[in-house]
Amino acid sequence: MPSPEFFQVKPVSDALRQLEAHWQTDPGYETVATADALNRILAADVVSPEQVPAFRKSTVDGYALQSLPAFLNVRGELKMGEAPALDVGLGEALLIHTGGMLPASADAVVMIEHTQASGAAEIEVLRAAAPGENVIQAGEDVGQGETMLPSRHRLRPQDIGALLAVGITSVDALCRPRIGILSCGDELLPPEVDSTPPGKVRDINAYTLSALAQQLGAKPLRLGIAADDFADYQRRAQAGFEACDILLLSAGSSVSARDYTRDVIAGLGQPGVLQHGLATKPGKPTIIAVCENKPVIGLPGNPVSALLVARQLLPRLVARHGGQPLKSPRFVSARLTQRVASVTGREDWLPVRLSDDAGGTQAQPIFGKSNLIFTLVDADGLLRIPLNTGGYDAGSLVEIERF
Amino acid sequence: MPSPEFFQVKPVSDALRQLEAHWQTDPGYETVATADALNRILAADVVSPEQVPAFRKSTVDGYALQSLPAFLNVRGELKMGEAPALDVGLGEALLIHTGGMLPASADAVVMIEHTQASGAAEIEVLRAAAPGENVIQAGEDVGQGETMLPSRHRLRPQDIGALLAVGITSVDALCRPRIGILSCGDELLPPEVDSTPPGKVRDINAYTLSALAQQLGAKPLRLGIAADDFADYQRRAQAGFEACDILLLSAGSSVSARDYTRDVIAGLGQPGVLQHGLATKPGKPTIIAVCENKPVIGLPGNPVSALLVARQLLPRLVARHGGQPLKSPRFVSARLTQRVASVTGREDWLPVRLSDDAGGTQAQPIFGKSNLIFTLVDADGLLRIPLNTGGYDAGSLVEIERF
Repeated sequence: MPSPEFFQVKPVSDALRQLEAHWQTDPGYETVATADALNRILAADVVSPEQVPAFRKSTVDGYALQSLPAFLNVRGELKMGEAPALDVGLGEALLIHTGGMLPASADAVVMIEHTQASGAAEIEVLRAAAPGENVIQAGEDVGQGETMLPSRHRLRPQDIGALLAVGITSVDALCRPRIGILSCGDELLPPEVDSTPPGKVRDINAYTLSALAQQLGAKPLRLGIAADDFADYQRRAQAGFEACDILLLSAGSSVSARDYTRDVIAGLGQPGVLQHGLATKPGKPTIIAVCENKPVIGLPGNPVSALLVARQLLPRLVARHGGQPLKSPRFVSARLTQRVASVTGREDWLPVRLSDDAGGTQAQPIFGKSNLIFTLVDADGLLRIPLNTGGYDAGSLVEIERF
Repeated sequence: MPSPEFFQVKPVSDALRQLEAHWQTDPGYETVATADALNRILAADVVSPEQVPAFRKSTVDGYALQSLPAFLNVRGELKMGEAPALDVGLGEALLIHTGGMLPASADAVVMIEHTQASGAAEIEVLRAAAPGENVIQAGEDVGQGETMLPSRHRLRPQDIGALLAVGITSVDALCRPRIGILSCGDELLPPEVDSTPPGKVRDINAYTLSALAQQLGAKPLRLGIAADDFADYQRRAQAGFEACDILLLSAGSSVSARDYTRDVIAGLGQPGVLQHGLATKPGKPTIIAVCENKPVIGLPGNPVSALLVARQLLPRLVARHGGQPLKSPRFVSARLTQRVASVTGREDWLPVRLSDDAGGTQAQPIFGKSNLIFTLVDADGLLRIPLNTGGYDAGSLVEIERF
């Protein structure tokens, strides 16, 4: 007769700290086109090979001149995109456009709005321009040899622009973590099957976890379904382990599959299982391990538990892999429509539906057996009930983590 | 002599409302694999072809039985992934695992923890299970023919799981908006050039705007660089317009290129330019237009202005295209380190650098000529100074929109 599972549970954050103590990240890097590098993380400082701007530029439409005289002879117009064919002497001006290159002897630009024609080729300056006014100096944006972006910086649209402005068309970016996902259980079939014989279900954890990995900017690697058979499970886990940076095992529901998970992890290398049992609901029977410097997580087979636990673990693992700070989730304040109870010493995650009315945002808890995926489909977010809170009364103002 | 540009400016939100009044969105749809459909928007309600679960299931490890008797004969073990080969009579039990299919005559499962062996093949039930206890009924998660997800729903990891659970391996998703981006100006060169001759600069707007479009889940379409020549500009704009759903024209800096933009837009169809000039800084000379039911935006050539204006316009256009509510940006509260001035009647956007100290988060404004892309590279977010605010004093608590 199988014995029930009892765990010495630990808070999620403690278990993660334990994992991190055994995990020295080394993401490696690859060269990617700058134009395609949105959200990629730089593997090294980037130094500008050029100065920006490369030449002195006007910031306005107006007249390039040597500053101060009030009446000027207009010698002509400077063309965009060309080095000035003309120069200005004292008392002379050249029509220049925003972004245009200043002629050698000009030291300021007076805005068109601050001039008026006083003859066929003469203008009067109504408001004088001080030296340097309306001019961007060469190198004012960035100097040659200056560090423009530091290592571990995550590229945003403006960063891509700045890199391309100095002609850096490719960058060394950290490799994104490959997250391997292996499901195990004789009851599991791939989702493509037309119908499921009695007792069988379609494996969806591989797909919900892949989508989560994708949301986090990681590379999901679906490793298929292992039979509830130690040799098959072990072989597939080993092959997947070698191909990924973080391995998720979504153990089938049978007791033997769960027992196998511990043994399979033990076979993947040192130090192996660090913690079995998390003080969280759903997700208590989760296994936290590191094998040969790679995190290995044994998740419950229950799709709701697997996804909710992975949401607590993966963001932190992915951020650490890239040397990034953990991005805080999007919260919204809402009033609970009814009382929710919890047990102290355990963190509870409860799906809620959000709605707005005159009194603000309301959060309606969705109760239901934890294996019903539609409790999450119908939800807009999650209420976290912290470790040492017994629950919340109806009408409490709570923070909801939005999906 | 060119005349300076004066605009009858309008607030951004007014100009967008004007645009929306002339734009009936019709995104069309395409069939995509469910497994690859994260963040895609459903084009129609999705109805479940099956019930979930397909059979009555145990939610625990324990004994399937006919409820109530206290001493039971254990007839055997039910295998995962198979229809029960055995049934239970009154006074009989079958070992069952979490997720296992219930035998026909069982109406409850008693948890292993609530039993103890009382003979070789006999157990004693220590805590009785009421009928239905620890059982998920067939169809309890979702019923056959039930609408599982509504049209215009954006797919999240759990939704992908739910779709695959019922064997829906592909869905009709709205086409993502194609955002065409055409730059114009004789001073512009593609970023790939090894060096820039005097007076020339690399075109970066096409790339910063592409990255922004990508961030928003749209499909950027870079249309290259048009010469500062009406025929070339018009020809490229027309070709790009036909291939996209929203057209961005990033006009070069010369007066003629700017004048051309209005004329080019006029040639693309009715109603054409709706508004020229927005009450925002940077970005005042922006053009808002709709031609033949497609939004066309004339952006300033200045990379900082172009990106900051596009950030105000594109999220709303992309959301409307997909029938989605506008997602609010990520804000962080911070104290201003120094006074910033503004002009009432104009919305100002000022880049700031964020830092944390004992007193909380500080926002340091980054002043600098608006065409310096590094003012945005060095920034962590933007301070918006609303239309009718004259500025903020040092020490003010402000909301910073994070990049």
